[in-house]
Amino acid sequence: MASTSSLTLSQALLARAISHHHASNPSSSDRVVSLPTHTIPTFSGLKSSHSKSSTGVHHRRRRVSDYSLQVRASVAQTPIVDKTTDISLVEKSVNTIRFLAIDAVEKANSGHPGLPMGCAPMGHILYDEVMRYNPKNPYWFNRDRFVLSAGHGCMLQYALLHLAGYDSVKEEDLKSFRQWGSRTPGHPENFETPGCEVTTGPLGQGIANAVGLALAEKHLAARFNKPDNEIVDHYTYVILGDGCQMEGISNEACSLAGHWGLGKLIAFYDDNHISIDGDTDIAFTESVDKRFEGLGWHIIWVKNGNTGYDDIRAAIEEAKTVKDKPTLIKVTTTIGYGSPNKANSYSVHGSALGAKEVDATRKNLGWPYEPFHVPEEVKKHWSRHVPDGAALESEWNAKFAEYEKKYKEEAAELKSIIYGELPAGWDKALPTYAPDSPADATRNLSQQCLNALAKVLPGLLGGSADLASSNMTLLKMFGDFQKNTPEERNVRFGVREHGMGAICNGIALHSPGLIPYCATFFVFTDYMRAAIRISALCEARVIYVMTHDSIGLGEDGPTHQPIEHLASFRAMPNILMLRPADGNETAGAYKVAVLNKKRPSILALSRQKLPQLPGTSVEGVEKGGYTISDNSSGNKPDVILIGTGSELEIAAKAAEELRKEGKAVRVVSLVSWELFDEQSDAYKESVLPAAVSARVSIEAGSTFGWEKIIGSKGKAIGIDRFGASAPAGRIYKEFGLTAEAVIAAAKELS
Amino acid sequence: MASTSSLTLSQALLARAISHHHASNPSSSDRVVSLPTHTIPTFSGLKSSHSKSSTGVHHRRRRVSDYSLQVRASVAQTPIVDKTTDISLVEKSVNTIRFLAIDAVEKANSGHPGLPMGCAPMGHILYDEVMRYNPKNPYWFNRDRFVLSAGHGCMLQYALLHLAGYDSVKEEDLKSFRQWGSRTPGHPENFETPGCEVTTGPLGQGIANAVGLALAEKHLAARFNKPDNEIVDHYTYVILGDGCQMEGISNEACSLAGHWGLGKLIAFYDDNHISIDGDTDIAFTESVDKRFEGLGWHIIWVKNGNTGYDDIRAAIEEAKTVKDKPTLIKVTTTIGYGSPNKANSYSVHGSALGAKEVDATRKNLGWPYEPFHVPEEVKKHWSRHVPDGAALESEWNAKFAEYEKKYKEEAAELKSIIYGELPAGWDKALPTYAPDSPADATRNLSQQCLNALAKVLPGLLGGSADLASSNMTLLKMFGDFQKNTPEERNVRFGVREHGMGAICNGIALHSPGLIPYCATFFVFTDYMRAAIRISALCEARVIYVMTHDSIGLGEDGPTHQPIEHLASFRAMPNILMLRPADGNETAGAYKVAVLNKKRPSILALSRQKLPQLPGTSVEGVEKGGYTISDNSSGNKPDVILIGTGSELEIAAKAAEELRKEGKAVRVVSLVSWELFDEQSDAYKESVLPAAVSARVSIEAGSTFGWEKIIGSKGKAIGIDRFGASAPAGRIYKEFGLTAEAVIAAAKELS
Repeated sequence: MASTSSLTLSQALLARAISHHHASNPSSSDRVVSLPTHTIPTFSGLKSSHSKSSTGVHHRRRRVSDYSLQVRASVAQTPIVDKTTDISLVEKSVNTIRFLAIDAVEKANSGHPGLPMGCAPMGHILYDEVMRYNPKNPYWFNRDRFVLSAGHGCMLQYALLHLAGYDSVKEEDLKSFRQWGSRTPGHPENFETPGCEVTTGPLGQGIANAVGLALAEKHLAARFNKPDNEIVDHYTYVILGDGCQMEGISNEACSLAGHWGLGKLIAFYDDNHISIDGDTDIAFTESVDKRFEGLGWHIIWVKNGNTGYDDIRAAIEEAKTVKDKPTLIKVTTTIGYGSPNKANSYSVHGSALGAKEVDATRKNLGWPYEPFHVPEEVKKHWSRHVPDGAALESEWNAKFAEYEKKYKEEAAELKSIIYGELPAGWDKALPTYAPDSPADATRNLSQQCLNALAKVLPGLLGGSADLASSNMTLLKMFGDFQKNTPEERNVRFGVREHGMGAICNGIALHSPGLIPYCATFFVFTDYMRAAIRISALCEARVIYVMTHDSIGLGEDGPTHQPIEHLASFRAMPNILMLRPADGNETAGAYKVAVLNKKRPSILALSRQKLPQLPGTSVEGVEKGGYTISDNSSGNKPDVILIGTGSELEIAAKAAEELRKEGKAVRVVSLVSWELFDEQSDAYKESVLPAAVSARVSIEAGSTFGWEKIIGSKGKAIGIDRFGASAPAGRIYKEFGLTAEAVIAAAKELS
Repeated sequence: MASTSSLTLSQALLARAISHHHASNPSSSDRVVSLPTHTIPTFSGLKSSHSKSSTGVHHRRRRVSDYSLQVRASVAQTPIVDKTTDISLVEKSVNTIRFLAIDAVEKANSGHPGLPMGCAPMGHILYDEVMRYNPKNPYWFNRDRFVLSAGHGCMLQYALLHLAGYDSVKEEDLKSFRQWGSRTPGHPENFETPGCEVTTGPLGQGIANAVGLALAEKHLAARFNKPDNEIVDHYTYVILGDGCQMEGISNEACSLAGHWGLGKLIAFYDDNHISIDGDTDIAFTESVDKRFEGLGWHIIWVKNGNTGYDDIRAAIEEAKTVKDKPTLIKVTTTIGYGSPNKANSYSVHGSALGAKEVDATRKNLGWPYEPFHVPEEVKKHWSRHVPDGAALESEWNAKFAEYEKKYKEEAAELKSIIYGELPAGWDKALPTYAPDSPADATRNLSQQCLNALAKVLPGLLGGSADLASSNMTLLKMFGDFQKNTPEERNVRFGVREHGMGAICNGIALHSPGLIPYCATFFVFTDYMRAAIRISALCEARVIYVMTHDSIGLGEDGPTHQPIEHLASFRAMPNILMLRPADGNETAGAYKVAVLNKKRPSILALSRQKLPQLPGTSVEGVEKGGYTISDNSSGNKPDVILIGTGSELEIAAKAAEELRKEGKAVRVVSLVSWELFDEQSDAYKESVLPAAVSARVSIEAGSTFGWEKIIGSKGKAIGIDRFGASAPAGRIYKEFGLTAEAVIAAAKELS
C-alpha cells in the first residue's frame, strides 16, 4: 500500500510533461493524473551497488576501494577503480555520443557539434556511471539534476537522453533536430524535452539555475531529512564553458554557491580555449581557478578531458567527499575532438562539419557506421538504465513509505512540495482591507501578504538583492537560509539581481511546490531581465517583488526611477505584469501569482503610502481590469478614467470632482493587462464599452502602448522622459501627474 | 598663438556643459562656442612640482624621494613623504567633507551619509593631493578621471567638487541636495553636474565605465603619443563598494581590465563590510583579493582607511609604478566613521543621521561649526586648485601647441576626437545601393557601413561580445585592441554584454569624438539593458549593433529570438530604435546614429538575406517613417501597409499583389518611431493621413504599441508568443508572417 501511494507521487509529477506549454489555466496542473501502466517503473529490486558506502558517497556500477584522495588532484594517481565496463566499450559509447551529435547537426545543417565532441567523455561518465535517474520518469523527485549551461551543445544532452532510454528523445527526434515541432530544439528547453531540467542557451543562466537546484536540495534536505531517513538526497551536475565563465551572472551565482557551501553542486568547466571569436586568449586570460578559489569553491583540474576517463571519475569521487564547498572540475578538452581538420578551432563551434569533414572524422575515429547508428553493444550496455532507474525510484518510494509512516506531518508537507498542490483554502490566509484601513505603501502590504502566505504555503521561500528592508520581503517567522541554517526560508542574495532571478528559476523548476520570490527595485529588473525572460519562457512560477515602482520613490532620481518598465514587460510573452493600487489589490496580485503555476508574475509596488480605495477587490484583480466606481447607467459613462497602482488614487479623486460637476464617470483599475486581455469580449465591453471613446489614462510610466486601451481619441497621462531627483510629491506635480490634469483631459474629451 | 588655439580647444569642450540635457538636434554641439572670459583659466606658469619624475610617476604638491615599493604592501612602512600639508589640516579637511555630506543629507532628510564619512580620507587625498584637474574647465581633455561607482555616496563627490572650486557645486547647490532643479541630484549625473564624468548609482556601472575611460586613454595614448611628447596621459580613479563588487557587471569589466593591462586604472574598494541588509557576512564572504588576483590585477590592502593617510598615499604611489596591470586598493573603512552610535551599521548607509546623532557626531569629531560651514583654513588650503588647475591646463595647451607644430596630421585627428567635430562630408563615405544591388543580410550591410565609416571617423572603435563573425563587426583595416596593441580599434569584449555596454558608455564620455559601437544578438540586449538605459540617460552616443533581430534567425530557437525587444526600447526615453530594411536604410541608420551626439542608437539587423527595395533612402530613415511606394493619389490610399526591417519586403510584395487587383496601396517604412514622432504634424499626415483608417502593419515582433500607428481599426500582424526552433522560412509561415496574411487583412479593411 505504502509503496503504491509513493509511486503515485512520482507519477503525478510525470503528468507535468504532458501539460500544454503555454497553458494559462492556473488550476490545470493541480490534479493528480494517473498514468498509463506502461510508464510505471518495474520493481526489479535493489542492487547492492546502489547502496551508500560508509563514507556517505554513492557508488554505482563500480566499487571503490581505498581510493586515495588528493585535495587538488589534477591527474588521478592510478585510481584503483574496478570498472565493470571495459575501456573499448566506453570509447565506443563516447564515440556514439559524438557521432549522434555530428550526424544530427549535419542533417539539420545547423547546430554546434564542437562541444558534444569534446564533452562526450564527461557526458558518458555522468549519465552512464554516476547519475541516479529514472529514464521513464524524468520527474522522479529524488533524481540527480543535470544542467547543460553551455546550452548550444544540446546534442550532447539529447544523445545522452536517447542512449539512457528517455522517451523524449527517440531516434526520429534526433533526426528532426532543430526542425519545426520537434522535441529537440536548438537549445535545451525543459518545456519541450522531459529530461532537460531547465532552459539554457543564453550563457551563464544554466550554472545559476544549477545553483538554484542545489539550493533547493540543500533546503529540502535540511527541512525533511531524518537521521534514519535521508529522503532528500541528490546531486546537481552542470557543464559550463568559457562563455558561461565570462558572463557576470555566473560569477554572481557561483559567489553565492560558495557562500552557501553547496557541497552537492558539481560543475564541470569545459576548458577548451575556444569561443566563437576564436582562441579565448583574445578576451579571456584570467585565472578561473584563482577566481573560484576566491569564491570559496573546491577546484580540481582534469588535464586530459578527451580520453582521461579515470581522471574524470576520480575528480567526481573527490568532489563528492568535499561536503562544505561546491566543486569546479576544470576539464581541459579539445573542441571538436576527433575532427582531423577542424578540432581545436572556432569553425567547429557552431556549424555543421560538412560532408567531407564528417567522413574524415569517421575515418579518424574508426567509425564505420551509418549516420545515427547506435552499435548493438552500446545499445545493450545502456539498456540497463531503464530497469535500474525504475529500481532506484522504487527504492526511494519504499523509503518514502517508511518516512510517511514515521513522520506523518513532514511527509505531508514534503508531498505538497513534490506535487505542487495548494492546501485547500490557502488564499483565505491573505489579508483583506476596508476603505478605512490605514493607508500604506503597497510594498508594506506586500510584506503582510508574504508573511500570511508563508504560514500556509510550505514551498514559499525567497528574498531580496540586498534590499530586504526596502522591498519589505523578510518572512518574520523564519531565519536566514545560510550555510549552516539551510532549513530557513529568507534567502539573502546580496547585490546580485541577475543571479537571483536565475537561481529562482532553478528553485521553481526543482519541485512544483516550491514557490520562490525575489525582490529588488523595479528599475533594476534591467539587471535581471534575461533571467526574467527565461522564467517566462521556461514556465517557472517565480514571483518578482519589485518595489519603488515609479518616480514616486523620489530623491534617488532618474537612475532609480522606472519609466519604460511596465510597457517593456507588458510586451513580454507569458508573464503577468501586476501593478496593484492598495491592500486588496496587492492580496489579489499574490493570489494570481500563486495560482499561475506556469508563468511568472511581476508585482510593481509603491514606496509611498497609498489609501485603501473603495471598490478594489481580489476578484477584480483576477480579471486584470475592472470598474472600481461608476455613477453612470446603461454602460455609457461620459468618460472613463483608467489608472494603475499608485495613480488609481488620482483617477478616483478626479472622478469625485467630475461627478460633483454632474459628469457620469467610471473609474477602471487596469492592474494586469494580460489578465484583462484573457477575459471574454462581453466582459471587456462591460468595462470599456466600445461606444465610449472619452477615455483618460494615468500611470506614472511611459505612455507607450496605452493607445490600445484609450483608443485614438483618448488621452494618456504618463511620463515619456527620464525622471528627476526631488521629493516625490514635487515630481508628480512637475510632471503633470495630478487630478487636475485628469479632470482637464476628461473635460476636453467629454 | 599656439597656446590660444589650444585654449580654444578645451573651451569648446566646456561648452558641452551648457547644452540642453535632452537636446536632440544632432548638430547643436558641433560648433565651437567661445566662452565668457571669466571661465578662461589664468596662465600662472608651470610649477616644477607638476613635472614628471624620472620614474614616470606624476607627483603633485609633494616630493617623493627614495620611496620604497612593496609589491603587496598592506601598510606603508613609514613612507618618506615630504608633505606640505600638516596632518591637522588634513584632518580638518577630511572632517569638512564628512560634515558637508552629513549636513546635506540631514537638510534633504534623504541620502547616504555612511560612505562619504568612511571614504572622506581617500576622497581628500585624491582631490587634494593626487588628481590633476582644472576646476574651471571640467572638460579639460587631459584631466584625471574620477568615478564614484558607489554612486549613492555622491555627497562625497559633491563636497570634493565644492572644495576644489568647481562652479557646478556652490554652497547653495549643497543646500539643495536632492531637490527639484538642483545640480546635486541623488546620484552622480554627468548631464547635471560638470565634474561628474559619468552617471552612477545602479551598482557596478561606474567601475565598468571607468574601465572604458581607461581603455580610451590607453588607446589614444598609443595612437597619439610621441617619444618626445606624451600628449595623452592621465589616470582613471574609481571608488567602488561591496555592492559594486557583488554585481556581475563589475567582474566582467574587471576581467577585461586585467586582460587589457590597464595600468592607469586605480580602483579603491571601500571595504566597509556593510551593505543595506546589514553585515556583508550574510551574503558576501568571497575573497575579493583572490578573485582580483585571478583577474590579473595588482592588489594592495590599506588596513586603516579611516585615518591611515600615509598608507593611502603609499598605495597610490605603488599603484602608479605597476604599469601593466590595473590596481585594486582595498581600503578597509568604517561606514559612517565618526558617528558614535551609528558607525559600522547599516542604519548609516542610506538615511539621514537625525538631529541628535548629528550633534553627537559633531561632538565626537570635535566639529563646532554650523551646518555647511567650511573652516577658513580649509577653504584657503583648497583655494589653490583653481590657479593650479588653470596652470595644468595651460601647460598641457602649450604641450599641445608644440605637438601640433611637429605632428600636424596627428594633431588634427586628435583634435577632431577632442572636439567631436565630424569631418566635412563624412557621410558621403556611406555606401549606396540600387534595387538591383545584390540581396544581403542587413548585418552584412552594416559591416560595409562600419568599415566605410572607420575610414573617415577617427574616433570609431568597438566590437562584439564574442560574436564578431556573426554580428559582422570587424573593421578590416584595423587589428585588435589588446594589451600590447592598444592603438588598434577592434575591441574583443568576450561574452560580457553588460560590461561591454558600460565600457562603451565610458569610452563615449571620455571624449566627444570617440564613437564606440558594440554588438551582440538583439535578444541579448536583455543582458545589458541596464547599461543601455544609462547610455540613454547619460547621453552617451553608443551605437548598439544588434543582429539576429527576430525569429528570422531560425534554428537557435526561442532563447535566441527577440520578440518584445523592439517595443521595450521604443518605450525607453532618449534612445533611437532603428530597424533598417535594406542597404540604403542601414546606411541611413548609421548616419542618424553618428549625428545624434546625445543619444544612443540601437540598430536591429537581420541574420537573413533581404532584397534592396525600391524607394528606400537615407533621407527617409532620417525622418523615421516614410512612403517607399504608393499608387494612390490625393493622399488617400485604400490601404496603408506598414513594415519595418525584414518585413518591409513582405509589405512591398503584398502591395504589388493588391495593386494588381486595382487597389491604391501605400507602403510605409517605419524604421524609427522616435524620429517619426519628432516630425511635423504636416509631415506625419502626409505619410499616415488621419482619414485612412485601413492600415496593416507587419513586424516580426510583439504587436504591443502598434495601435498607436494603425489606430483602433487597423490590423497588426506580429508575434505575441515566444519563438520556435526551426528554419526561418518555416517559422515565418507557421506564425503567419506572410504576404498572404497582409493581403487578407488589407482586403478585410479596405
